[in-house]
Formats: sequence, C-alpha cells, structure tokens
Amino acid sequence: MSAEIELRVHALEGLPEIELGDDLAAIIGDALAATDGLLPLTDTDVLVVTQKIVSKAEGAVVDLTEIEPRPEAVAFAQRWDRDPRQVEVVLRQARRIVRMANGVIITETPHGFVCANGGVDASNVGPASGSIVTLLPVDPDASAVAIRAGIRARFGQDVPVIVSDSFGRPWRWGIVDVAIGVSGLEPLDDLRGSPDADGRIMHSTVRAVADELASAAELALGKSAGRPVALVRGAAFTRGEARIADALIPGDMDLFR
Amino acid sequence: MSAEIELRVHALEGLPEIELGDDLAAIIGDALAATDGLLPLTDTDVLVVTQKIVSKAEGAVVDLTEIEPRPEAVAFAQRWDRDPRQVEVVLRQARRIVRMANGVIITETPHGFVCANGGVDASNVGPASGSIVTLLPVDPDASAVAIRAGIRARFGQDVPVIVSDSFGRPWRWGIVDVAIGVSGLEPLDDLRGSPDADGRIMHSTVRAVADELASAAELALGKSAGRPVALVRGAAFTRGEARIADALIPGDMDLFR
Repeated sequence: MSAEIELRVHALEGLPEIELGDDLAAIIGDALAATDGLLPLTDTDVLVVTQKIVSKAEGAVVDLTEIEPRPEAVAFAQRWDRDPRQVEVVLRQARRIVRMANGVIITETPHGFVCANGGVDASNVGPASGSIVTLLPVDPDASAVAIRAGIRARFGQDVPVIVSDSFGRPWRWGIVDVAIGVSGLEPLDDLRGSPDADGRIMHSTVRAVADELASAAELALGKSAGRPVALVRGAAFTRGEARIADALIPGDMDLFR
Repeated sequence: MSAEIELRVHALEGLPEIELGDDLAAIIGDALAATDGLLPLTDTDVLVVTQKIVSKAEGAVVDLTEIEPRPEAVAFAQRWDRDPRQVEVVLRQARRIVRMANGVIITETPHGFVCANGGVDASNVGPASGSIVTLLPVDPDASAVAIRAGIRARFGQDVPVIVSDSFGRPWRWGIVDVAIGVSGLEPLDDLRGSPDADGRIMHSTVRAVADELASAAELALGKSAGRPVALVRGAAFTRGEARIADALIPGDMDLFR
C-alpha cells in the first residue's frame, strides 16, 4: 500500500504587513509564486484568508482615539476592566446584542454572525497601532470574490477563497476558525441522499466544509505567527457560487438555540 | 523561499470492518505500518479516530429489534417519520432533553455533550445490519488512552489520540467534527498572556485545537469513504493529560447559550 497524502495545509510565508488599499490578490499571488512547490495551482486548492488582513486592506478599522463612548459603554468597561471606546465600537457594530455579561459582549453582526465582540479585534493589527481595532469586512463574500478573481486572472486556475475568523461557541471553551465569506465553493456539502459506505442512504448529513477548511487552515497558521493566508490542497469540496449567508440558520429554524 | 508544508492529514487506508472486541490500537498500528511514509512516527503526530469504530469495537451498539419504544417515542416518530425504536434509544441515552421538535431531538449526553440524537447513529454501521445503531462510547477519553498506549508500546512514540464525532451547532447549518475524547494533548491551547505577532498581549485567545484537529481530519476522511482514522502530522499542540470534560463549559458560565 502506498502512502496517500489526502490533505496538505501550507501556510504562505513572506506576506508583508497589509495596509489600507493593498491588492490582496496580488500580494497573495506573489506569496504563492515565491513558495517552491505550490505552483501550478491545482483543482483541489482552496485559499483561506484570515479576516484581519482583509479588514486592514479594506479599511475596516477604527482608531479608538476618535471614539466617544456612550455612558452604557463606560459603565460596562469600568465594571469589567475593558476599554470603553472598544466597547462602544462593539455596540455600534451590533445588529443585536445577544448577551452582555461577565465582561463579554456577544452580538449578532449585520452579516448575521453571532460572536463575541461582534468581530471587533485589537490583536495583530500592526506595530505602533495600539489604538487601532479591526472590524469585520463589510461584505466578506465580496472580499473573497475579489481575491479569487485576481488569482484566476494571474494563474489561470479557479481557486475558491474562504475568508475566516475565530469564533467561540456554546457548550465548549475555546475558539475555532470558521468561514465568514466564501467564493467559488459551497460552504455546505450536502450528503443527504448519498449512500454511505454500506450503501445505506444518509438522511441528515450536511458537512460544513468551509468551516472545517477554515479550522484546518488555523492549525497551520496559528494565532500569533504573523501568517495570515493558507493554501489547502487535497480537500474534497463542491464548487458553487453560494454566499456565506446560505450557511446561516434563520432563528426560527435553529433548534440548537 | 522554500515550500514549507505545515500540516498533512493522512487518511489511513485498509482498515478492516471493525467488530466487537477488536483491538483498535493493533488494527490502527497495522494500518500505520502498511502505509508507506508514515513511519517513523513523529513528535507532531496526532491520531484522530472517528467515534463509529470505537463504539463498534467497544460494543456501544444497540439492536433496534430488541427495543420497545415508549408511547412518547412512538408519537414523535409517527409525527416526523422516524423509527420509534431509534427515538427510544435517543431518549434512553439522554441526561437531559434540550429540544424535541421538527423531527430533531437535541440532548445532553451523560458526557455533557449537547448534540442531535445524543450521538446515536445509524449510518456506516456495517453491511446487513439495518437494525444496528451505534451509541457514543461510554468513556471516550478512556478509549483514546487505550489506543495511545497501544501505539506507544508498539512504535515507541507517544502519539496523542482524539476520538471525534460530527456535531451540529447553533446559528450555522451543517456538522463539523469535534473531539469527544482525548489522550495526550490539551484540547485547549491557551494563548492568554502570550504576545501576538506585534508583541501585544492577547487577552482572550484560547484555541480549541482538538476540535480543529478533528475537523481537519474529517476533510481527509469524508463521511462516506469508509476511512475512519487519520494521522495529522505537523500541527502545533500542547501535550498534557486533560480530559475532554475540561473543554466543556459549565452551563452557568456559558454566555453563548
């Protein structure tokens, strides 16, 4: 029996610090080209791009020195030892406050994501930028579309793109990376009706492939390594033009809530 | 710049159909040895073993022909076109019923996991076994301990083991594989207090590494391929003797619920 490597996750090296207006597709393309062994791109490749560099390139950032917190933000921040300006930004970014307790604010974002601090993040935003926080990209699907188009134009290969971020979950400690934007692949791989290995029909198996790809990428990228993009090679996925909203459960259909 | 493969996920090939009493460590060891390129095992290896074969080897299965459903199970099954005997098994496996609606039963298992059907699963249980369903292993940590011990005894390498299963989540359609048992690694990689790439202290970053490893493995294993074990090589993790219960949030501390 020969070894069959099913999946490889390559963390792209050498990406520069991303700044407002940067062409992410060009920069990611340069990193792909500069890394031995990744070209030519293949039919099983997916690019996973972490939210932070997308937000920075698109200007989805806020300078806290320009923020005037409302009294509610000041009170919460004082009680839980947080920056009141950051609390204010979280509140402004929220479509709905899910929970505000124990120093944690869980919101629903305008995209429909439920996450801590509405995706507002102060880590890894660059040196000498202590007052800068990133917001989620306004339209992470569009961000993914643009990167995919640039990669295809340059390399002639249609590589699906996932924009990822780290979210907490109920019931389990810790964060896992999930997809917050997609282009070129179905975030859900619907096996309902496909036979399993024994030929039995599987009734309710919908694999959240985009989320699993985001998590696999995170294992290679880590949280503190300054590596914001991964190429995943060898995964099985279904091509398509879905949006990440297709992967979100409407509230009244969500039995887990 | 040279290519640096950060992470490889190998789906082990050639595992036989697992039966009651099988020595999983021996069978997985045979598959590792029979696959070119996997030996010697390395310091960055983690084995991910899917729940189904653990349950089958340990006899955590039920023959539905021996189950007498209670009236509540019959009523629910009739309304939603389900097998009343399977509903009965789900109810018997539950420590708590979280929700029972729209044909879906979400329970908290005795382990503390919240999942659909309490982990009771009728897919991939073997040919000619239409009435057999698997339950979750009674103690998935212990299952992982035994496999880890067998692999270490045979190959002289301490390889952490994760027992994985596919769970749904709130807010997002689809299932992702998560860890339901661990041995030899910390399921949570706690970066709180570690500096990020800019030297800023990260305050609330706890990576759910075991869950991300389970998800990465699932991408290589798929749901219908008859490949129940993956070797993940190249991930960063912290060795330790934690139990999966350490990764579960007590109800009164869980702000996402």
